Amino acid sequence: MNPIVIGIAGGTASGKTTLADNIEKEFGEKIAKLSHDYYYKSHDELSFEDRKKLNYDHPDAFDTDMLIQHIIDLKNNKPVEAPIYSFTNHNREDKTLTIKPNKVILVEGILIFENPTLRDLMDIKIFVDADADIRFIRRLERDILERNRDLNSVIEQYCSTVKPMHEQFVEPSKKHADIIVPKGGNNLIALNMIIEKIKSIL
Amino acid sequence: MNPIVIGIAGGTASGKTTLADNIEKEFGEKIAKLSHDYYYKSHDELSFEDRKKLNYDHPDAFDTDMLIQHIIDLKNNKPVEAPIYSFTNHNREDKTLTIKPNKVILVEGILIFENPTLRDLMDIKIFVDADADIRFIRRLERDILERNRDLNSVIEQYCSTVKPMHEQFVEPSKKHADIIVPKGGNNLIALNMIIEKIKSIL
Repeated sequence: MNPIVIGIAGGTASGKTTLADNIEKEFGEKIAKLSHDYYYKSHDELSFEDRKKLNYDHPDAFDTDMLIQHIIDLKNNKPVEAPIYSFTNHNREDKTLTIKPNKVILVEGILIFENPTLRDLMDIKIFVDADADIRFIRRLERDILERNRDLNSVIEQYCSTVKPMHEQFVEPSKKHADIIVPKGGNNLIALNMIIEKIKSIL
Repeated sequence: MNPIVIGIAGGTASGKTTLADNIEKEFGEKIAKLSHDYYYKSHDELSFEDRKKLNYDHPDAFDTDMLIQHIIDLKNNKPVEAPIYSFTNHNREDKTLTIKPNKVILVEGILIFENPTLRDLMDIKIFVDADADIRFIRRLERDILERNRDLNSVIEQYCSTVKPMHEQFVEPSKKHADIIVPKGGNNLIALNMIIEKIKSIL
């Protein structure tokens, strides 16, 4: 077994998670899925209020070295214990998630094409693209409806870190994509094309 | 047989013809290929000098209704006689090219996603993308090396019609793409993905 690594990047609320979930649904147990979000650094040294103020959209917020090692382990047929990050406590949890090696390793996150070592582990790099306004609207709806955030805090975070980090790191990393999927996660023709490609490998 | 229609659009010198040629190579006789360029309108009423001055990058330069009818005919299993356009005489030739119906109908051109009727005939819409400067450089090399044009005339045409028409018609039509292929015609991962998708249909 020589697993293939597929990276799915894209801006916040671009639809990359929907795309990754739809691929996972199609292949079920043949897929190992890792999210860069699992690897947010723990900050036990900071108070909850200070952790809330961290810039979660900067590459330094992630323990990318650990993600890289986990992908290498999975490629070498070793299971890994992925960390679990709590978005409620803004910190890493004590328990971990066991990920078993598989024929397809799906890696997902806004910044996964930004790190060259991580990028070079990927056989297929897919960037999910959506207009910035549509991404903001989706994020607003999600944060207000699902995360009980208020309008001002969503706008403040978006303008102070999400948007500048997108422009500095996420958008330029699109250059490394092999294919770009527009219209986010609801693009069935692109989904189908990716599925057929994976089938041909398996 | 229910043929599928695949459209490949993209700016001048983006690599769309290379991509279409590589798909054709893979499937050979199973593919019918039509280029929008074949359908440039004839202008017998104009002198050669006046024909040279026409705007070849505007949607009105093409007999798109004829291309649409030809695609419908091919879908209905009827062969078509595609016109042949001479870029030397800047006019349509007397002879035609017989295109036989086939399982896959490939349509290629800078403006094929701009016309809604034409667009709606397509099952898969692929936009080949490349940076504007790289496209200009490729076009310059091609026009100077292969078409014996001089530098000034290439720059003059690019700035007066190619670039403005790209911005007015080609770039906005990217919105309709199902997938976007960056790095033009040399993107083997995207090529392979498209080939696997076509194989799954055939």
